[in-house]
Formats: sequence, C-alpha cells, structure tokens
Amino acid sequence: MLSPVASARQRLEVAMFVNHMPRYEILSAEAMDQLDRGWRRLISEVGVEFSSERALEIFRRAGQRVEGETVFFDPEFVLEQVALAPREFDVQARNPERSVHIGGDHMTFAAVYGPPFVRQGDVRRDGTLDDFVNFARLSQSFDVLDSAGGVVLEPNDRPLDSRHLDMVFALLTETDKFFMGNVISGQNARDTIAMSEIVFGGRESIERTPSSISIISVNSPMRWDERMLEAMFEYCEANQAVVLTPFLLMGAMSPVTIPATLVQQIAETLSGVALAQLIRPGCPVIFGSFLSTIDMQSGSPTFGTPESAIGLLATGQIARHLGLPFRTGGGLTSSQVADGQAGYEAMMTMMPTFLAGTNFVMHSAGWLEGGLVAGYEKFVMDVQIQEMLQAQFAPLEIDEASLAFDAHVEVGHGGHFLGAAHTLERFRTCFYRPFLSSSDNFERWTGKGAPDTSARASTICAERLESFEAPPMDDAVRAELQDFVTRRRRELGD
Amino acid sequence: MLSPVASARQRLEVAMFVNHMPRYEILSAEAMDQLDRGWRRLISEVGVEFSSERALEIFRRAGQRVEGETVFFDPEFVLEQVALAPREFDVQARNPERSVHIGGDHMTFAAVYGPPFVRQGDVRRDGTLDDFVNFARLSQSFDVLDSAGGVVLEPNDRPLDSRHLDMVFALLTETDKFFMGNVISGQNARDTIAMSEIVFGGRESIERTPSSISIISVNSPMRWDERMLEAMFEYCEANQAVVLTPFLLMGAMSPVTIPATLVQQIAETLSGVALAQLIRPGCPVIFGSFLSTIDMQSGSPTFGTPESAIGLLATGQIARHLGLPFRTGGGLTSSQVADGQAGYEAMMTMMPTFLAGTNFVMHSAGWLEGGLVAGYEKFVMDVQIQEMLQAQFAPLEIDEASLAFDAHVEVGHGGHFLGAAHTLERFRTCFYRPFLSSSDNFERWTGKGAPDTSARASTICAERLESFEAPPMDDAVRAELQDFVTRRRRELGD
Repeated sequence: MLSPVASARQRLEVAMFVNHMPRYEILSAEAMDQLDRGWRRLISEVGVEFSSERALEIFRRAGQRVEGETVFFDPEFVLEQVALAPREFDVQARNPERSVHIGGDHMTFAAVYGPPFVRQGDVRRDGTLDDFVNFARLSQSFDVLDSAGGVVLEPNDRPLDSRHLDMVFALLTETDKFFMGNVISGQNARDTIAMSEIVFGGRESIERTPSSISIISVNSPMRWDERMLEAMFEYCEANQAVVLTPFLLMGAMSPVTIPATLVQQIAETLSGVALAQLIRPGCPVIFGSFLSTIDMQSGSPTFGTPESAIGLLATGQIARHLGLPFRTGGGLTSSQVADGQAGYEAMMTMMPTFLAGTNFVMHSAGWLEGGLVAGYEKFVMDVQIQEMLQAQFAPLEIDEASLAFDAHVEVGHGGHFLGAAHTLERFRTCFYRPFLSSSDNFERWTGKGAPDTSARASTICAERLESFEAPPMDDAVRAELQDFVTRRRRELGD
Repeated sequence: MLSPVASARQRLEVAMFVNHMPRYEILSAEAMDQLDRGWRRLISEVGVEFSSERALEIFRRAGQRVEGETVFFDPEFVLEQVALAPREFDVQARNPERSVHIGGDHMTFAAVYGPPFVRQGDVRRDGTLDDFVNFARLSQSFDVLDSAGGVVLEPNDRPLDSRHLDMVFALLTETDKFFMGNVISGQNARDTIAMSEIVFGGRESIERTPSSISIISVNSPMRWDERMLEAMFEYCEANQAVVLTPFLLMGAMSPVTIPATLVQQIAETLSGVALAQLIRPGCPVIFGSFLSTIDMQSGSPTFGTPESAIGLLATGQIARHLGLPFRTGGGLTSSQVADGQAGYEAMMTMMPTFLAGTNFVMHSAGWLEGGLVAGYEKFVMDVQIQEMLQAQFAPLEIDEASLAFDAHVEVGHGGHFLGAAHTLERFRTCFYRPFLSSSDNFERWTGKGAPDTSARASTICAERLESFEAPPMDDAVRAELQDFVTRRRRELGD
C-alpha cells in the first residue's frame, strides 16, 4: 500500500524506559493504614528468623529483642533503617549507555531467572551452558531488555560448585548490559564481586556505583536462611544492590488472603532492608515481591492469576509509600508451551507490571511452566509483549498538528486518509510496528506456511542467534577475567 | 493435596458484573480541553454528512445549517441533545435475571459480531446457520457473557434477504439473554422489533424497557449511510437502545494520530446522539468506539495494538465526561489462530476494557483474524480471559480475618499454610480457579496428551455444546415467533 516503513521499534530503542503514565492504585488510605498496622504487629509480635549469628548480633547491638534466632522488631526502628536506603540509584553496565537508573518512573527489565529446564519447540530438556549463552545473547540482542539477569537458566552440564563462574563470565562477555550476582553462598558472591572488579575498574568503582543487582530471597514465611544471608553480607558490604524478596505462593508460604500476604511481604522485606542498612548504611536495596497463588486442589503454583495481579498493583503502591524502589511482575505463566495461555497470562502479569510502574522487572522474557523452563519461543513472545506495553505506556501528545484538522478538510466525508498529507508525513513512525505479531491476511499467511506465533518466534530466535555479534571487550580485561575463572575453577576442584 | 474444591467460578456466576475498581484515566484536564475544542471545530466547520433526507429535514427544523447532505452543527445544540440521553438505563432479557443495566460501574459483555468465516481447529470455512446456533449456545452456556450479541457470524447458507429472521429467531430461542437487533435496513429493524414484541409482551413493554441494543455504525470519516439511518429511525422510535459507533482504523478512516482520531470519534458519535434525541427525546444511546490501526506497510487492519489500548482508555474518560454510557474493547486480535498472539492481543485489549470500566463490550468472545473469523477455540479462550479479569477487578476486602494474624502465630517461621485453620476455612473459594488454563506439572500434562490451550478449548467447546439445553420458552410464544418467521420469509421470497 505505502512504501516500506522504517521499523517503528527504532522509537523504542532508547537506553531505558521511563513510564510517564499515571500509576494505577487500588488501595484506599484506610486500606493502607490497615496494612500498616498489620506488618507492625507481625514484625514485632511474631518476629523474623535470621539463621545467621552475625545478623542476630547486629540486631542485638542495634537494640532489637532477639530470642533464639528470632528478632522481634520495633517497627519505628525498622522505618528508621528504611529511611537510610536511597529512594533511587544507578547501576552501571559494561556499556555506559546501557547503565540503568533504579527508582522513580524508571523501569528496568531482566530476563527469566532460575529455570533448570529449557524448551525449544516441542523439545523440553535440561538446560546447558550452551543454552545459557544463547539466552544471554538473546537478551543482548533485544534492546528493550536491560539485562540478561543472573541465573538465566541452570547450566546443568557444568559442575555445581563452579558453574557460577561460567554464568558470570557469560553474562560479562556475551552482554554489555548490567547483570545479577550469584547468591548461592558468600563465596559465590565474593567471586561475582571479584569478577565485577576486573571488568569495572576495581572495588572503588563498583562501591561508588553498583555494577550488579542480586536477589536475596526470604524462606517465607518469616525466615532468612544462612547461605542467602552470607551472600547478602558480601554484596551489601561492597555497596552492590540487593532485591530483598519474599517468595510468596499464597496458600503455601503465606495465608490464602491477599491482605495477609501483603502484610507478610512488608514485614519480611523490611526486616531485610533493616539488615542491609545496618551492614552498610545507604546500601541500595529494592523492595522485592514475588507473589502468586497455588492451585488449592493440586498444590501446583499458578501464575498470571487475578490474585497475583492485585498483589502486584498493591505492592507498587506500598513500596512508593515506603519510599523504596520495587521489583514485581514479569511475563509469568503456568503454561507448558508458548501457546494462548502463555500469551494471555504473560500479558495478565506484564500489563499490571506497567500499571504499577515497577522499577525492576525480573522474568521479563522466557519464563515458562511456572518458572521451571526457560522457553526460546516464549522469550521472543515476551519481548514482543514488552515492546507493545512500552509503546502503550507513553504519554499522548496533543497539539495542533496531532489534531489534524487540515487532514479532515483535505479528506472530507466518507473518504480515506491513506494519501493525506498528514498521513504521508507520519506513516513511517506513526504506529508501533510489531516484529512477531502477524496481521497477514489469510491468503498471505497460508502462503507462508501458516506459521503460528510459536513458529514465527522460533524463526526470529534462530535469526537473532545466527547474526549475533558479541559486544566488544578489551582483550586484557577479557584475559584477566578468563584467568580468574580458570584459577577459581581449579581451586574448587572442577 | 487438599480435597476437591468447588468451582471458584461459582463466585462469578452473578447476573452481571459491576466494576468497583478505580478507572484508569490518562488524559489531563488540559488534554480534555484540547479534545473538546477539536470536536467542536470539526463538527461545526467540516460538518457531518447524513445520507437521509429525513435526518436532514429534522436537523433543518432544529435550526442547524444544512448544505447538500452536510450538517454543520452548533456544538452547544449538540450538547443540549446529549443531555437528553439517559446516563444509565436497563435492557430487559427474556430471562429477567439476565436483564442488564447499562452505565455507571456496570459492565455488559456480548460475543463477537459480524464474521463471515468460522475457524474450528485447523479448519477455516464459511459460517453457516448451524455455526450461528452453536455460537449462540456457547454464549448462553457461559455465565460471564450477558449476550450472544447479534450477527454472531454470517449464516452464509441462508438467503441474504431473510437470514436476519433466522438469526433473531436463534438468539431469542437458544438464549434467554438480551440480544442485538439487525441493522441492515429499516425493514430488518422492523422485523427485529416485531419479534421482540412477540417475546416481550408487546410494544408497550419494549418501549418501557428496551429489549435490544443495536449497533449503528458511521461510515467514517464523518458520514452516516442511508440504510443504517433507516434502521436507527426504527429503533429509536421504539425506544430501543442504539450504539452509535464510528468505525475508525487509524490511517484509513481517521488520521494517523490518536488525538485527531478521538476528536473525530466524538464529533461522529455526538452527531448520531443528537439525531437519536431528535427522533425520540430520552432514547437510550451508547457512545460507541471501534478504534484501531492499520499496518501502514500492508494496509491490513491491526488489533490489540498499543494505539488501540490508548484510544480505549481515552474513550472511557471522554464518555464519562459527556455523561454517556460507552462501548469499546473486546477480545480483539489480528491473529489467524487461537495461539500466543491471540492470547496476548486479546488480553492487551480486554484489560484496558476493564481499566476503562467499559459499559458495553462487544466482541467479548470469539473474535479472530481481525474480525473476519468467529473462532470456536478463541471463544473459550476469551471467556477464560474475561473471567480472570472479572476476578481481578473486584475490590480487596481488608479486615481482621483477612489479615490472618492468627495463621502466622499458628504456622510460625519457615512453615507452610496448607493445613492452617485459616486456610482450611477458605480453600474452596479463596482463589479464582480457571477452567481452561492449565497448571498441571509436566508429567501430568504429558500424560494427558500434552494438550495446548487451543486443544483444551476445543474439548471444552465440544462438552458445552454436547450438554447444551435450550432455556425454557412458552410454547405459544415460540409458535407465534416461528409463524412470524415463516410468513416473513415467504413475503421476502425465500
């Protein structure tokens, strides 16, 4: 019809996304008060367990009541610690243009985290380091993603003790975006930090501006485990950002009511924020949320549910109230394959993620089967969804030109605007143009072999990996990084 | 894990859905002012064409300037007419429990409207009357749908001149929900009204409370065609509700900018509202919106796009400002099959439909391939999406019981809530339980034959149709309706 258009995606290919649209807030002031009373009661009367003598000693010295491994918090003390955390902060990426700002209206997107399996078309199998590298490359190749994340998938063909080295090496060499640190143990955290220091110019550089975000999960309900806390100590001491995240599948790790789960989430997260600030005042933290449901009949985790969407919206409001950047959302789904359910559940989570103005979005691309699987086709589908939403959550500009009165005078009644001057001036960039979604008519689509979304995603995936070029890296830095990995792997006996 | 739960859907099986959640509004007061100035200029300086001497004469008598077929409106006069329209009104269904309220926080959902084709699995073919009856039955069988709509699909095996009789007969006998009238001509509208009179107890009954909603489309830009207007005269004179709907694919029927399209939409709709109120003051009208984009490269219509979502949200805000109930949204998609794209695009339209608090939602179920196809599997997928969103857009109740402090005392640190008293009291109804989405683990899902969403939807569809029982109808009424159809079909020579 009209001559070929430039990719409208180019409009989106900015360093990072800022969501200037309104927040969608669902909690009344009274509801916020009720939740406030709730977490204060929980954190002071039930308390939080810390399986770490070092943490307990810190809390004791700070004047909190400690019995066994349980800390009974003074809520006012907790809020004093929360006030020490920065409301917003930067995280540097290897490519300075890809550095991100965490907080405010800024939204940051990282790929899926944690799956042991991968799915490619009809095949579901154990993830390998090759898969890991592929997903890192895909993350690098799509501009709307700010990070490949951390454990994009488990490279099961690598030794357990040293695979964190392989992962961090891949993240630092295959991408030039910021990355997430390993949190399996304090030692793994130290290795991550050491590799950061090599790439980012030493300890001083990363202490000035963090070069990683790491996820510290609560063993919900109301308990922090030792190894996670060890990793947390390392990261906080190095001023690296931590996402303090309760792991709440309602009905299992929290009560079956959303208000109770929100209250628990606040108590758990803030107890971690307090620890972070006691370790290093001013250390960057993110209020973490991973809140969904289980099927009460089978016990299976369920994602993209109404309850998780409500929890997500409420979480954003609560985090803003507390003055902390927050993490929620992603392209979550229970679906086994990249099908209709995967599409509507991912969107069911991703649109509220934008409505809430989520500052840090993990699992933005590739999440499948309740997080057990990293899906190649799902990855591409999620990037498509994210691009659409970035285009949707952009303010509407209204001025004389966009009101197009002259176009109406030109076209008149019952005519069409295809050839209007107003159209010809704008047709290349006027609409977001999807790269995966098809609007081919039936004949054209059939002529192409009638590929469904998953089939098209598979083709796009192959093209991206085929044409991938690793971002440039200084040879000496790369060699130093490689030497470190080799030495540490030897020390670990692998 | 726990014993079988009652279907959580039962919670949703109420007569109609009321959206008590906040509206998501994206236009500033200044933006609203700019749009206000825009439509006033358009309707007064470019004017609107009415291809109907009867309409033109009415406008002349009302003091509007008419040149040829173009009416140049005084915006204040238009707003005076708009003020005569009811802000909210009822529409009666054959089953009084299925009657609906249009306006305010109420949302009403009807199935897809207009496709010439159907898709069932891999087969795409011409729609038939059997298909029409099937879709009417599906609409009846899912409680979240308030109506099968009108032309659920084109029954291409029936004669063109009399197929409206077959469709209205099917809608009135296979469903007991409200229905949409035929709008192909004034005569078809008269037939629809006559059949309504038979079923709803005469003219007086339907004039008191309308028994149908009919869609009157603008031949955008800025023109109303004769046959549509003839149907509109019939419906308005009988006090039947009309949805006055511009048909706006940006780039073709409206400029490529959203503000210009919104302005055009207001001018077109309000010109129709003015006519409706001049035909019969107080006649129930709905501010209609069907606003999407075209692919500027191929010219294909595109649905579920960022621009359509923005337009949808803005439309709700504008209609509320004007004090009119409104129609937008649905499960729109360009996808050819019920796949990932169909899922995320339908959700991309349906969630904003809820965020906007849309009063009347056409195309809620079954829309496929840009509206050319009524899809069996897509129908089921859309109902699933609608149910999820009805569960999401429900206010969060916060009280002592939902805060569940005692459950925390019972479970303690690092435990689980599966067996907690608080859980056992609520586990049957605590979460919305999907009927299509699967959270089966991989082994269980594989054991079932690894059915994807479309395959599961196909099974559900077959079960629904297999177990369908037509809602009861008085024998005499049915016979009278049948006689009418037989007589009119004969008169039409079919």
